[in-house]
Amino acid sequence: MANEYIDFETLKYLLYDVHQLEEVLEGDRFADHDVASLDMFLEAVKEFSDRELFPYIKEMDEQPAYHKDGNVFVHKQVDVMMKKGGEMGLISGTFDYDAGGLQLPMLVYTASAFIQDAANNHLPGYAGLTLGSAELIVHFGNAALNDTYVPKMLSGEWGGTMCLTEPQAGSSLSDVVTKAVPTNEGYYKISGQKIFISGGDHQYADNFVHLVLARIEGAPAGTKGISLFVVPKKRPDSDGNLNPNDVTTVADFQKMGQRGYCTTHLGFGDADDCRGWLVGEPHQGLKYMFLMMNGARIAVGRGAAAIATAAYHASLQYAKERPQGRKLASDGKKNPEQGQTLIINHPDVRRMLLHQKVVAEGSLSLVLLASKYYDLKETMKDESEKNKYALLLELIIPMVKTYPSEMGAQAVSNGLQVLGGYGFCTDFILQQYYRDIRIFPIYEGTTGIQSQDLLGRKLLLENGKALELLTNEILQTIEEVSKYDQLKKYAVKLGEKLKIAQKVIQSLLHYAKKGDFERFLSDATPFMEYLSTITMAWIWLDIAAHSKNALVTGQKNHSEDFYENKIHAMKFFFKYEVPKTSGLSEILMDEETLTIADEKEVLN
Amino acid sequence: MANEYIDFETLKYLLYDVHQLEEVLEGDRFADHDVASLDMFLEAVKEFSDRELFPYIKEMDEQPAYHKDGNVFVHKQVDVMMKKGGEMGLISGTFDYDAGGLQLPMLVYTASAFIQDAANNHLPGYAGLTLGSAELIVHFGNAALNDTYVPKMLSGEWGGTMCLTEPQAGSSLSDVVTKAVPTNEGYYKISGQKIFISGGDHQYADNFVHLVLARIEGAPAGTKGISLFVVPKKRPDSDGNLNPNDVTTVADFQKMGQRGYCTTHLGFGDADDCRGWLVGEPHQGLKYMFLMMNGARIAVGRGAAAIATAAYHASLQYAKERPQGRKLASDGKKNPEQGQTLIINHPDVRRMLLHQKVVAEGSLSLVLLASKYYDLKETMKDESEKNKYALLLELIIPMVKTYPSEMGAQAVSNGLQVLGGYGFCTDFILQQYYRDIRIFPIYEGTTGIQSQDLLGRKLLLENGKALELLTNEILQTIEEVSKYDQLKKYAVKLGEKLKIAQKVIQSLLHYAKKGDFERFLSDATPFMEYLSTITMAWIWLDIAAHSKNALVTGQKNHSEDFYENKIHAMKFFFKYEVPKTSGLSEILMDEETLTIADEKEVLN
Repeated sequence: MANEYIDFETLKYLLYDVHQLEEVLEGDRFADHDVASLDMFLEAVKEFSDRELFPYIKEMDEQPAYHKDGNVFVHKQVDVMMKKGGEMGLISGTFDYDAGGLQLPMLVYTASAFIQDAANNHLPGYAGLTLGSAELIVHFGNAALNDTYVPKMLSGEWGGTMCLTEPQAGSSLSDVVTKAVPTNEGYYKISGQKIFISGGDHQYADNFVHLVLARIEGAPAGTKGISLFVVPKKRPDSDGNLNPNDVTTVADFQKMGQRGYCTTHLGFGDADDCRGWLVGEPHQGLKYMFLMMNGARIAVGRGAAAIATAAYHASLQYAKERPQGRKLASDGKKNPEQGQTLIINHPDVRRMLLHQKVVAEGSLSLVLLASKYYDLKETMKDESEKNKYALLLELIIPMVKTYPSEMGAQAVSNGLQVLGGYGFCTDFILQQYYRDIRIFPIYEGTTGIQSQDLLGRKLLLENGKALELLTNEILQTIEEVSKYDQLKKYAVKLGEKLKIAQKVIQSLLHYAKKGDFERFLSDATPFMEYLSTITMAWIWLDIAAHSKNALVTGQKNHSEDFYENKIHAMKFFFKYEVPKTSGLSEILMDEETLTIADEKEVLN
Repeated sequence: MANEYIDFETLKYLLYDVHQLEEVLEGDRFADHDVASLDMFLEAVKEFSDRELFPYIKEMDEQPAYHKDGNVFVHKQVDVMMKKGGEMGLISGTFDYDAGGLQLPMLVYTASAFIQDAANNHLPGYAGLTLGSAELIVHFGNAALNDTYVPKMLSGEWGGTMCLTEPQAGSSLSDVVTKAVPTNEGYYKISGQKIFISGGDHQYADNFVHLVLARIEGAPAGTKGISLFVVPKKRPDSDGNLNPNDVTTVADFQKMGQRGYCTTHLGFGDADDCRGWLVGEPHQGLKYMFLMMNGARIAVGRGAAAIATAAYHASLQYAKERPQGRKLASDGKKNPEQGQTLIINHPDVRRMLLHQKVVAEGSLSLVLLASKYYDLKETMKDESEKNKYALLLELIIPMVKTYPSEMGAQAVSNGLQVLGGYGFCTDFILQQYYRDIRIFPIYEGTTGIQSQDLLGRKLLLENGKALELLTNEILQTIEEVSKYDQLKKYAVKLGEKLKIAQKVIQSLLHYAKKGDFERFLSDATPFMEYLSTITMAWIWLDIAAHSKNALVTGQKNHSEDFYENKIHAMKFFFKYEVPKTSGLSEILMDEETLTIADEKEVLN
């Protein structure tokens, strides 16, 4: 097993230097924090992850969660993650002091969770979903719900889940049929089936608090008629006793990856005795859920970035230790009398490693940026500033979820390839990361759905205001970088790409204006790859700018090599990744329509 | 489980119409065959695969091969594959009548093995490696080796393997250290370790015949000093009794995929009693092995094409049956009162399905083309024609191995994505195909090694003669297609791409001419993707040309829709795949050098 799963120095560089944590700490909410204290928190998380998470990653794959006699059984470290993690504030971190939290900035929470994800991606989800469901109760639930459920969730004693998907509806939430029938007792009677419920049941929590989307009898069709309920596995009575609430664990889905993270099928109200308590107002369930969704989507991007990071370090270590083959002599031949070289010295292996590095570190920088926007939209006092960061977050969020997931999977594949035949063998961790990360393009809205969100909704927000704001951010970096002769050509390249992107977007909007929405959105996924790649070019140019600045001004927190390597990685991104946008813009400007169904089926 | 794993009609179309099996049958060697009899053979293979291979694919994954007490245990269908398959000629098919074979063209053998691979990719390898090792004995071994080993191999009673890789050497065969010490008894004493030996041991064969690369004591260093030996697991004596030959099964590698296909670690001569018999001349081992390598590389491309095909049909069937979501109305909204649509009607799902279709069917066409070249180089009487097809085969073989493997893995990923969350669950087959196909970019020379072969050796063959021949073939298709107004623009596009490719190649050769071979080959892998995509554009244009021709002339063996769909798929390839070459040519023309190691390590 690899000895290291992240480069802590790079994480700190991105957090403190590139994304300037201090700017976020200016918000009143964070008055008690400073960089030094937060750094200690992150060190503690790293130490916890080294000791309690990383050593169990292979074991959790080999001993997957399973369902037996109506119960789900998971690895013992789930208990440690929830209880010790709960104690450390890994569930409650971002909550207000009032709610028992640490009032951490999202930026720090993301960094902390990234470390945990990279150490063992099968574990932090148990805490993350408990956090997410507690957050829904805190924001939208009444005092009784808060008092009854939130403290035990934040301590890790009770698990929390989000119950959206149903077997017949899949991603289409307007087809949710789980039923809520009002009673005169203040609760609703819930009946229905939910699938793909992560962390939905296990032996290490006394209770589970399910946040369930359901339709109150007589509610309008579609997403407008969906309400949100707290449905505990066991109902606490006034003495604190827990009584069964007719929630059944039907099954645990067996999966290709993340096998230690249970994925349950839950049944509600089989015996007509399942009670649910309305959160907030009726018919507002989807709105509430989606207000929390940005956090969830940052979490997915973060998890994928973390797996890509761990895979990068595992394959890098292998490449540094494995002798094989020889370097080419100037006649193109190899001299067999010469000793073997390490595989890290083969250009093709370096290409695969650098690809992993730019995807992993770039993705981390992107999720940190989203987290910073998340903080600033909350803490900024000026309304227009608040709105600016809210719009920026809305625009980038589908990319934040998708780019690390899609490109992370490709990066991990390169990591596996670095090991050759060993990469395919279960003795090595790469094949596990390859399986684990494959769920990320599906989680929390598939790539197809995120892409439609990006092109069909986010680009049109406030008449394109969000895109204008992002463009300004990018132009600002371009201007700043242009002052460095060594980097200017990359800034110019990005400027050119940005101009072409505007043309591409106009040409796509043309379909929307004509009312041909199906055509407008039919190439949304290539558009996602297109805009993400341009955005990532900006992310890398920004990283390089901060490195260059440190080298030029001499205000260095890291070694010269450290900064030079970041600039090298930026160049790699521009040489090997940015050119993809040339082909993608051709696809997007191509007027031929080949994927819209008509009477004659072309698929056979 | 899906009901169909291939589209037999498409296979026949490619075999009979596009690649004109009849042209191959003109060779004297195939005088006894005609299309009708070969069609019956393929029907029998399909029937065998339906009954004996396809039903066991999931079971073989769930009950992987394993090692216990020095023996490897595999699924019972391995016995059926070898014995019944052997009886049907699935091992001996391409061998001469003299050797007990059917004298089948490679083109037909490939089609037959493709069916088996698509049905269950865990099984045909057992037969394929037995065939490959028997072929080495037939071509280069003496009469005694032939008589002793070949008949029992072709009947499937004994297994055969290729033993190349060693733990310390990996892909670098010049570092093979397995030792062969001559004796006065006509045999050598063999000692060493071989790893990643597919089909290296199991309970269903009385004996195994290992073709082992080893170094005769005192042989020169490097690949020049490697010889080839027959090393049986058990030595047959003159009475036909089998005696242990000091070959130990050390382990069975546990893998992420193809878990039913054992991958053994073999030890030779632990007790100093392992005998090997030299095949052909000393120090010629690698040459012999590589003369057989084209067949092995076609087989890898074929297997990957087959898995991509099976995955395509599984996801297509799901998409045709799964209702979810609604089509967009002209206002961009969805009407929840409307019934759900099938997911095949969503453009993004269609895009993923069409991507799978063009990769799977295009890859099949490519491996069939390679097989046709393989036949023609053997059966053509004219020496210059023989040489032409030999060169064409040499040039395309690295692409034949790589394109289906790399793009097939991406296609299967799209297949998994079509199923959403279910795609990740072990109840569905897509996740298995996703794991199974991942070994193909590693098998028989990784993508990196194939890419260096393509750029560093094949492009330079006879001063670029091979590339000139391929270019002429492509230009001929362009000319032919240009007569159809509807298709002309695609022909023009391919012509343009071909011209740019010549510039790209010249600019790369510039480094070779300067003697900077490391730089020349440093972007070999992007070059592989580049030239493969252009080659595949030609493959698809050729398929479309044959379809258009049938529609225009009315000489139809298939429905109009069948032909129209092939043309549609070609258009899809040109819209969504060909543009990749724009970015790739930018990468290849970029003069910046970022992946060549120097003193300062940029990777951390």
